[in-house]
Amino acid sequence: MSDPVTMSLEEVHGLTTRILLGHGVSQDQTRAVADTVTNAERDACKAHGLFRVPGYVKSVVSGKVDAKAVPERKDLAPAVIQVDGKHGFSPLALEVGRAPLIERARSQGIAALAVIHAHHFAALWPEVEPLAEQGLAAFAFVDSFSYVAPAGGSKPLYGTNPMAFAWPREKRPPLVFDQAASVSARGEIQIHLRDGKPLPEGWALGPDGQPTTDPEAALAGAQLPFGGYKGAALALMVELLAGALVGDVFSFEASARDNKDGGPPQGGELIIAIDPSRCVSGDARAGQLARAEQLFAMVLEQDGTRLPSDRRYAARLITPTEGISIPASLFATLQELQIP
Amino acid sequence: MSDPVTMSLEEVHGLTTRILLGHGVSQDQTRAVADTVTNAERDACKAHGLFRVPGYVKSVVSGKVDAKAVPERKDLAPAVIQVDGKHGFSPLALEVGRAPLIERARSQGIAALAVIHAHHFAALWPEVEPLAEQGLAAFAFVDSFSYVAPAGGSKPLYGTNPMAFAWPREKRPPLVFDQAASVSARGEIQIHLRDGKPLPEGWALGPDGQPTTDPEAALAGAQLPFGGYKGAALALMVELLAGALVGDVFSFEASARDNKDGGPPQGGELIIAIDPSRCVSGDARAGQLARAEQLFAMVLEQDGTRLPSDRRYAARLITPTEGISIPASLFATLQELQIP
Repeated sequence: MSDPVTMSLEEVHGLTTRILLGHGVSQDQTRAVADTVTNAERDACKAHGLFRVPGYVKSVVSGKVDAKAVPERKDLAPAVIQVDGKHGFSPLALEVGRAPLIERARSQGIAALAVIHAHHFAALWPEVEPLAEQGLAAFAFVDSFSYVAPAGGSKPLYGTNPMAFAWPREKRPPLVFDQAASVSARGEIQIHLRDGKPLPEGWALGPDGQPTTDPEAALAGAQLPFGGYKGAALALMVELLAGALVGDVFSFEASARDNKDGGPPQGGELIIAIDPSRCVSGDARAGQLARAEQLFAMVLEQDGTRLPSDRRYAARLITPTEGISIPASLFATLQELQIP
Repeated sequence: MSDPVTMSLEEVHGLTTRILLGHGVSQDQTRAVADTVTNAERDACKAHGLFRVPGYVKSVVSGKVDAKAVPERKDLAPAVIQVDGKHGFSPLALEVGRAPLIERARSQGIAALAVIHAHHFAALWPEVEPLAEQGLAAFAFVDSFSYVAPAGGSKPLYGTNPMAFAWPREKRPPLVFDQAASVSARGEIQIHLRDGKPLPEGWALGPDGQPTTDPEAALAGAQLPFGGYKGAALALMVELLAGALVGDVFSFEASARDNKDGGPPQGGELIIAIDPSRCVSGDARAGQLARAEQLFAMVLEQDGTRLPSDRRYAARLITPTEGISIPASLFATLQELQIP
């Protein structure tokens, strides 16, 4: 195996941009995806960085994704905005909805952004972190492909269905968590398969419905929700919010419709933003964020604790100067995807 | 031990009413608490039924709760309503906020109800189910006393911090879940202690920070979040929403302030209601709820599954005619609480 290849964040952005533009992706769609990929590498979220670029390309080549889609915004209610991604990638659809969502959350106190007909292939923290940077608390919910068994069941039905939450902090990046309703990410099982390692107990059922530690059986069977029936309830909630509520597909429908090109599923997404300063009366506003800092300090006072987003922020201090590294095999694949 | 005592739901309501009125609780506060207690018994949620009445009384006797509080509603933003419970019990505060929250969710698409200065001693499904009965999707979040360790930590900081979610169904009661961020309810540990049974592994740490199956050590130590760091993240989110966001106490503050009378903690609560019909454009409205039914049918198609609220609804079919039963010891306690 060759040595990993080191790249600057500018090189990550440039390479992603050249690859996507070379495959006919529009300037706007390209910029939004390249920003998302670069931010993932910046924060050491490797599973959503350059690793995803071949999948983005495949979905353009197969025609599943409209590489020139122009998202369309519609105001559905005083506090609800819809962005129709027009079957493009989700980062541009999210970008189109962001400023109006912030404006509505501030003017109405709470507001929702319903994204439909977008192809989602990234993490959820890129949605909620910019909202919290603007002083808002925010949730995001997205469904995916049918991978996870319902509580008590043994066949895949729900997606891994992450939810994210962000809370604003003064003079610091927001507190953010972004977690799947499944015990493990799909990709972690694939990595165990690649490395020939058994899975930890409790991650999955085989096609026979029995618990398995064999990654191949797990991928053919069903992933398990975290925390048993409680995680399954969250997975079901995410199906309802990102599927029925916004008027897009459930994970099982995304799986049934997909052309199996290895690219992102079609799906909906719900984002909710709340302005904390509109949730208290005047005199309680001063010190509202400082009170949260007191709670965070009490978490960190205990040995062995950290705040959910601290690892990403630690990486963010390093990668702009030291760059990031990717496996030589991925670098070679990406080189080939640069159509001259 | 004497035989359990059987009562009709009317008797449950009547007994609760007599006890509270007899202790000087106002008509409105009494009615709201008696409704909540009776509905819990109706749905076989014994931990929030008559079992709670002595605690309600203790908090009145100790003066912690204002038994004649008149909740005050304030509109903080077009989509945010605040109800100040004025240190009464939460059921009346929630009742005062309900109709305006429904109206705002319908007119704005999404709306929030921030309840502050209320004493919460019940489950969360009574908050969200009536909203879903009106065709809305709804969330509720409440903090409690400091019982649960943060991820990686070993000392109690967070409350058991339940969240509830409800989804409307046509011609059927809503789909509802209501679950603590801890592995187990506090009461389940107390029941193990009473019965002299060891706890299952993974529920708690002792005061030494080590895992324990001894209920007494668990109560003196820290409960664990469900699903490890993911449940802990949800517990932290609930602290932020029901504490800092609405401008009320965190669980650790509720514990510090409490007079240990055995009654309910003071705290805030956040409820969010969304009108699904305002989250899609006109043509997508027809069949929006029917699509969710398709998902529920696919859950139930698998052997071993059930929907989150099915057990409560099964009980609800039986208790109005067959009544409910409580231990003779509780019945005797309640008889004594009826001041002549």
